[in-house]
Amino acid sequence: MSTAPQARTTRRGRPGYDLESVLRIAVKLFNERGYDGTSMEDLARRLGITKSAIYHHVPSKQELLRLAVDRALDGLFAVAEEAKAVDGRAVEQLEFLVRGSVGVLVERLPFVTLLLRVRGNTKVERSALARRREFDRIVAELVARAETEGDIRPDVDPAVTARLLFGMVNSLIEWYRPRKGDTDIADVVAKIAFDGIRLRS
Amino acid sequence: MSTAPQARTTRRGRPGYDLESVLRIAVKLFNERGYDGTSMEDLARRLGITKSAIYHHVPSKQELLRLAVDRALDGLFAVAEEAKAVDGRAVEQLEFLVRGSVGVLVERLPFVTLLLRVRGNTKVERSALARRREFDRIVAELVARAETEGDIRPDVDPAVTARLLFGMVNSLIEWYRPRKGDTDIADVVAKIAFDGIRLRS
Repeated sequence: MSTAPQARTTRRGRPGYDLESVLRIAVKLFNERGYDGTSMEDLARRLGITKSAIYHHVPSKQELLRLAVDRALDGLFAVAEEAKAVDGRAVEQLEFLVRGSVGVLVERLPFVTLLLRVRGNTKVERSALARRREFDRIVAELVARAETEGDIRPDVDPAVTARLLFGMVNSLIEWYRPRKGDTDIADVVAKIAFDGIRLRS
Repeated sequence: MSTAPQARTTRRGRPGYDLESVLRIAVKLFNERGYDGTSMEDLARRLGITKSAIYHHVPSKQELLRLAVDRALDGLFAVAEEAKAVDGRAVEQLEFLVRGSVGVLVERLPFVTLLLRVRGNTKVERSALARRREFDRIVAELVARAETEGDIRPDVDPAVTARLLFGMVNSLIEWYRPRKGDTDIADVVAKIAFDGIRLRS
């Protein structure tokens, strides 16, 4: 209560937002309350500006969602492209893809978190889900090739291996928060995913 | 539209629900629309009965949530108790716990799905989150003991290993749907988690 009058006085002098900062705060809010549960009114209140000031930057809530999930998806697809160019066996390309995906996830944590919670109620969400499925297909194909080349266990369906692999990667959004001086989490995930948690003698 | 009049005519003759069937349909609805996004009115509409008919079975929406998440948590804690009683090394108890947890997840899929989406806005949710943390602690302690016994890789923080392990297990809610004649999914998860996806020569 006591801060409200001050907020009102300072609003005029508040430096303007750019699209990037509107987007970041929108994504934070979507992750807290759900995309459906957040209105442009809520976002305006959080930013301390009017709704029409938001519409100056972006035409709709759906467009904010599209920008956000594309930020995550474009990162993942860029890594998939780089992985294709890795010289060597499919298993090496797969390991590159896993490490790179962890990197994207850590760098773009709020965006990937939003992406992974998308349910498919709107056109933007359905299109994001379609791109996710395309990414899953790329992973499953790499796993299948690595099986053929004798590097990945052949006793599990490649699609299931791919899903469990990325189930582990994606679970990072639930608990991982980057801290300085951390062990490289991509390294940890790759070790456990490829070689398991059991110690071999 | 065309089915509405019929639904209205048959309501009277509809066999009564018991608490169990009300709970199952509530959980389905919570998973579809989110707990916050589902009202008792929505549930009444889905069941084709009045709100007061629901209150005959259960005092509140929060109580439905409590029953649902406890169904998941009680299953997981029962497996943790059984795991403790497994004769042998910590790594064997851990493997028992992983396989058993997959079993609970598959058997009680909608309940575990709801549990894993709980965010902590109400007393019931906060209490469920506290029990989840307690379960995570049990897993991390088992991992730590197995490291001390030389069976689990010592180069990763036991809490991180525990989280990645259950990140993989919990990811099943996103895609796994039990089908008759399936390979034992608990077996697949245990193989990949403990021994990795890489084939050893």
